[in-house]
Amino acid sequence: MKGYAMLSIGETGWIEKERPACGPDDAIIRPLAISPCTSDVHTVWAGALGERHNMILGHEGCGVVDEVGSNVKDFKVGDRIMVAAITPDWQSIAAQEGYPMHSGGMLAGWKFSNFKDGVFGEYFHVNDADGNLAHLPDSISPEEACMLSDMVPTGFHGVELADVKFGDTVLVIGIGPVGLMAVAGTSLRGASRIIAVGTRPNCIEAAKAYGASDFVNYKDGDIAEQVMELTNGKGVDKVIVAGGNNDTFETAVKVVKPGGTIGNVNYLGEGTYIQIPRVEWGVGMGHKKIVGGLMPGGRARLEKLGSLVTSGRLDVSIMLTHKFHGFEHIEEALMLMKDKPRDLIKPVVVL
Amino acid sequence: MKGYAMLSIGETGWIEKERPACGPDDAIIRPLAISPCTSDVHTVWAGALGERHNMILGHEGCGVVDEVGSNVKDFKVGDRIMVAAITPDWQSIAAQEGYPMHSGGMLAGWKFSNFKDGVFGEYFHVNDADGNLAHLPDSISPEEACMLSDMVPTGFHGVELADVKFGDTVLVIGIGPVGLMAVAGTSLRGASRIIAVGTRPNCIEAAKAYGASDFVNYKDGDIAEQVMELTNGKGVDKVIVAGGNNDTFETAVKVVKPGGTIGNVNYLGEGTYIQIPRVEWGVGMGHKKIVGGLMPGGRARLEKLGSLVTSGRLDVSIMLTHKFHGFEHIEEALMLMKDKPRDLIKPVVVL
Amino acid sequence: MKGYAMLSIGETGWIEKERPACGPDDAIIRPLAISPCTSDVHTVWAGALGERHNMILGHEGCGVVDEVGSNVKDFKVGDRIMVAAITPDWQSIAAQEGYPMHSGGMLAGWKFSNFKDGVFGEYFHVNDADGNLAHLPDSISPEEACMLSDMVPTGFHGVELADVKFGDTVLVIGIGPVGLMAVAGTSLRGASRIIAVGTRPNCIEAAKAYGASDFVNYKDGDIAEQVMELTNGKGVDKVIVAGGNNDTFETAVKVVKPGGTIGNVNYLGEGTYIQIPRVEWGVGMGHKKIVGGLMPGGRARLEKLGSLVTSGRLDVSIMLTHKFHGFEHIEEALMLMKDKPRDLIKPVVVL
Amino acid sequence: MKGYAMLSIGETGWIEKERPACGPDDAIIRPLAISPCTSDVHTVWAGALGERHNMILGHEGCGVVDEVGSNVKDFKVGDRIMVAAITPDWQSIAAQEGYPMHSGGMLAGWKFSNFKDGVFGEYFHVNDADGNLAHLPDSISPEEACMLSDMVPTGFHGVELADVKFGDTVLVIGIGPVGLMAVAGTSLRGASRIIAVGTRPNCIEAAKAYGASDFVNYKDGDIAEQVMELTNGKGVDKVIVAGGNNDTFETAVKVVKPGGTIGNVNYLGEGTYIQIPRVEWGVGMGHKKIVGGLMPGGRARLEKLGSLVTSGRLDVSIMLTHKFHGFEHIEEALMLMKDKPRDLIKPVVVL
Repeated sequence: MKGYAMLSIGETGWIEKERPACGPDDAIIRPLAISPCTSDVHTVWAGALGERHNMILGHEGCGVVDEVGSNVKDFKVGDRIMVAAITPDWQSIAAQEGYPMHSGGMLAGWKFSNFKDGVFGEYFHVNDADGNLAHLPDSISPEEACMLSDMVPTGFHGVELADVKFGDTVLVIGIGPVGLMAVAGTSLRGASRIIAVGTRPNCIEAAKAYGASDFVNYKDGDIAEQVMELTNGKGVDKVIVAGGNNDTFETAVKVVKPGGTIGNVNYLGEGTYIQIPRVEWGVGMGHKKIVGGLMPGGRARLEKLGSLVTSGRLDVSIMLTHKFHGFEHIEEALMLMKDKPRDLIKPVVVL
Repeated sequence: MKGYAMLSIGETGWIEKERPACGPDDAIIRPLAISPCTSDVHTVWAGALGERHNMILGHEGCGVVDEVGSNVKDFKVGDRIMVAAITPDWQSIAAQEGYPMHSGGMLAGWKFSNFKDGVFGEYFHVNDADGNLAHLPDSISPEEACMLSDMVPTGFHGVELADVKFGDTVLVIGIGPVGLMAVAGTSLRGASRIIAVGTRPNCIEAAKAYGASDFVNYKDGDIAEQVMELTNGKGVDKVIVAGGNNDTFETAVKVVKPGGTIGNVNYLGEGTYIQIPRVEWGVGMGHKKIVGGLMPGGRARLEKLGSLVTSGRLDVSIMLTHKFHGFEHIEEALMLMKDKPRDLIKPVVVL
Repeated sequence: MKGYAMLSIGETGWIEKERPACGPDDAIIRPLAISPCTSDVHTVWAGALGERHNMILGHEGCGVVDEVGSNVKDFKVGDRIMVAAITPDWQSIAAQEGYPMHSGGMLAGWKFSNFKDGVFGEYFHVNDADGNLAHLPDSISPEEACMLSDMVPTGFHGVELADVKFGDTVLVIGIGPVGLMAVAGTSLRGASRIIAVGTRPNCIEAAKAYGASDFVNYKDGDIAEQVMELTNGKGVDKVIVAGGNNDTFETAVKVVKPGGTIGNVNYLGEGTYIQIPRVEWGVGMGHKKIVGGLMPGGRARLEKLGSLVTSGRLDVSIMLTHKFHGFEHIEEALMLMKDKPRDLIKPVVVL
Repeated sequence: MKGYAMLSIGETGWIEKERPACGPDDAIIRPLAISPCTSDVHTVWAGALGERHNMILGHEGCGVVDEVGSNVKDFKVGDRIMVAAITPDWQSIAAQEGYPMHSGGMLAGWKFSNFKDGVFGEYFHVNDADGNLAHLPDSISPEEACMLSDMVPTGFHGVELADVKFGDTVLVIGIGPVGLMAVAGTSLRGASRIIAVGTRPNCIEAAKAYGASDFVNYKDGDIAEQVMELTNGKGVDKVIVAGGNNDTFETAVKVVKPGGTIGNVNYLGEGTYIQIPRVEWGVGMGHKKIVGGLMPGGRARLEKLGSLVTSGRLDVSIMLTHKFHGFEHIEEALMLMKDKPRDLIKPVVVL
């Protein structure tokens, strides 16, 4: 079968591979739509995961079941399905303890285009099919379903990590697609005020549509100072970090109130240390909680978050700025993600 | 009245002051026993809180009610009472939101020998008496009650922050008196294995008595490496930081499992940043939660933790290595805490 | 001063009373607007609290500070304020343990028109003013502020008790004003589907506006059966009980999934027992949690929930179907609440 | 193979069956020790699960791996293993949402001697072997391991459901083996006072050894009144129900404080309703939470709870009052459980 792959760090191209084999709990999926992610760009051009050879890229997609293992009960050939970027081993101790994304080791629930071929092939393999697939409802289009693979569950996990409550003032740092979904989730979780950090006009428009009430631009000065001014010196109840870098945590700690939480869903790709400012962190005793986490993945979550799209409470189509039709456009879509033109939020390829 | 005070940074001595005035919700207490704390030493000799002039020291003590305000309902003159080092304003928004220790601003629930005179005087003042005093049961001696002011509630708060669960393996860094109480609390919370970091033989003996099962000594090599070896490379479920410095968090992040929590109750007195190692923190997504907090204070907590002493489930007397009788010994007790002789855990002065 | 009072069970009328005295932590408020509640009706005509003589009614209102005690820091004469129906003693052990509504005994945080005169007087008394008042923002009208006294915080507490999560299907039983706020809160908390039980057309219209997606009418057959049919036999994730009677819990247990929660905010006025059906409750082991609770009250909550109104995320005006101007209309408004005409949701009296 | 079975309601006996087949994720175990449970007695003689024909009994046991499926990674033939009475389907939505015991339907995580043959055979079948087996450490004897199948995890789940905290006063109703483990877990969780309800002298002795501090006997009068007297009218913080019947909840609601929790792990075998007393339940608003649940099962929990035995923190041998050697004694052990002689806590059969 054909697939669009990372050939090695810095190099991508089309390759031929064997169609993946299907174990007793597994499924083989023929994709209906796929979407490239900034992580694919990091993987290839920053070598974020280390060297990989001829690994098919992609972890956002949906499709049709082409084969199922003998143990699979709830899915059959021909079923249209959604699947998350994270596909845990559900029998693992980590999953039993509530951290499926770390099944098999820290972050090892992330398998697509990391430990095995991703979804940018004619077929892709899903482990633990009953636990990792979800039926694709008629009311969700394949391109929308791609957003449920990673952007929605990751952005919403930021909201869960930050533990947003009724009436909270929340700072969302970064309004790329994950940040936008963090804004949407924060809004759906009952915050009264959402301050978003970002600069691109189309993202600001989308963030407004998703519920952001205030915007802060790093070009206008120190982010922390701007946030403190906007909040009359009180700071914010919660911070969701969906962009930036290691230094972003200094800002986050400065503006969050004692008792508040900083939830990170941003992949920190560089540097040795994240630096927590000692005094603003209450000399270690300010109850400013810091937690970062990969999203959980899995079927239950797909169904729950999918139901927000089905019921019309979450409109992911706002993010789909660039649509392609045909397998051959995968490369073009990925390059868009790499080059990030001003009008891009997310590209999607319908197959 | 007389009191033993910080005259200025680096200087202590006896002073004369007005007996404190009693507002309608307040109480004035005549101490029965007091104990100096490492924080008193930091306050005076490291200037940790900044300059203070003629401020009576001390925040660990118990006493007899000498006067109560017109609004106080549950305490009367002559009652023997316990009081915590942290005496929140219970009407504050911070207290209502579950963070009484930050009432009036981050850490501002800590008033004794910080924003007002402490307990090393002939009398001391307690705000919100109904909320901050607790009756001293006959079965708790005044010197034991001093341990319920700070050592017990602080050490146990570390256990709460780290969220110790049945069968957990827990690393407790530091086995001074707060660390010892963290060990005791971890044991009382159902951990199966408690690895303690410390070197002083008397503290190691006490830690064993409180339930520590393994010991790690920085002199034997890198702490993180030793812990990983002790746990067959698996790491620990939770870490309680009750000693060390900013660098301690690097160790903690390295050894805690994904999904684990690091609870800090150590006052971080120096340095600009706490450094979180990026890779071991799961590039921001390892669910290694970091939370540090001042203990809550207040009457409900005093009664609950006091009941562990009353019922014989917690023996604080193990820590009381040095006992003095008479007000005039306060200086001697404080200097012991400053000089930390090898056989010291906690000094106490019975008045 | 004048007040509209319960004279005895079944009897109401205007009385003259002394203006309440102001203790050091207290405030005396002159009301700007008040609203009668179904509880006032229960109190008078069902004798739900037992006999009361010449007790001024009412616990929903806002006003202007007329006097403050010497200890009050954050409010001064002339300030426009909101106040909740529940005004806890914040120093109490119950409040310290997270249950302020039970300060002084079960449900005893409810003082207005229960243990002391309520808000239907020329003046009313508020204990713990710094903890129980909140400044009334200009963007909230006095009649809207009345909804923040009880309807909003009670309905939203149902959502908190039921622990609504992203994508949940939630059953809200009862769509009187508390039920409507439970619907609004459920929607603001990220549910994907809200099934409401009710019959009155105006309430159904309001419930739709607040986010209800499906309606069930007891006249169309057994509620539980209808809900199971609507959910394809799966049942609902959570149930909020905001109406009905003891038998309502049988329905709730039948339709909630294992692992789900039933949150009750309905005052159960009659009968000896609430009956939990054994088999549907999983023979005691189905993890169908049952929790009912009076709302917390207090300033922090008023500010948080008020910010949802200020920010435009919650429109309480939909409920205000009947508005009166002038103190003399209190009786008329109360009688409306008693008679419940078909077009009533809530009456309010602007003073 | 041979097995000791329920032939039909009220009848047991030895039968011959096919050795179970091993699917790709499964394991076939040869038991090393087994223990009968009161549930086996209910199943056979009360027909609690309905009719069953020729179903091998037993759900408490440990053994040696005799066969593993092709997908099983962590266990191999010859490994000595522990297994819980509850063996969930870990890929299920219920497990993903934190309720593995309800995978496949309410309570359906309980498969042994319910939906399939139990452990009283020459071999038994375990689904999801990597998720449901745990290696048996050398320091745990086979007969002790049987206690980790059900008594320990069920009793400790009661503690988790009741959410016992430092210094709590806890009422444990019932001190059969599950109640004893609830006492042990409550003690290990940091309660200061444990009031146990029971009458049999050997159980009282064991309960003392596990940490119970007070005892209440129904023969001495109303349980609720006795508990209120023991607590000076304050009631208890938490209640664990590990015995009794539907009426037990009336007692529990009466004695638990507002804000407290009642955790049930008792199988309620008869009657139509559990009756919650309306007034003592705070007319629906007393925050007296009621939750009952089957224990979770699974490998992670076995390892965690097993580590308490390994570390010497939990001594299950106190419960093992009657030991037999040889497969042929299974019937005798089961009849003991049925007849409950005064000196019995748990029988165990080493094979």
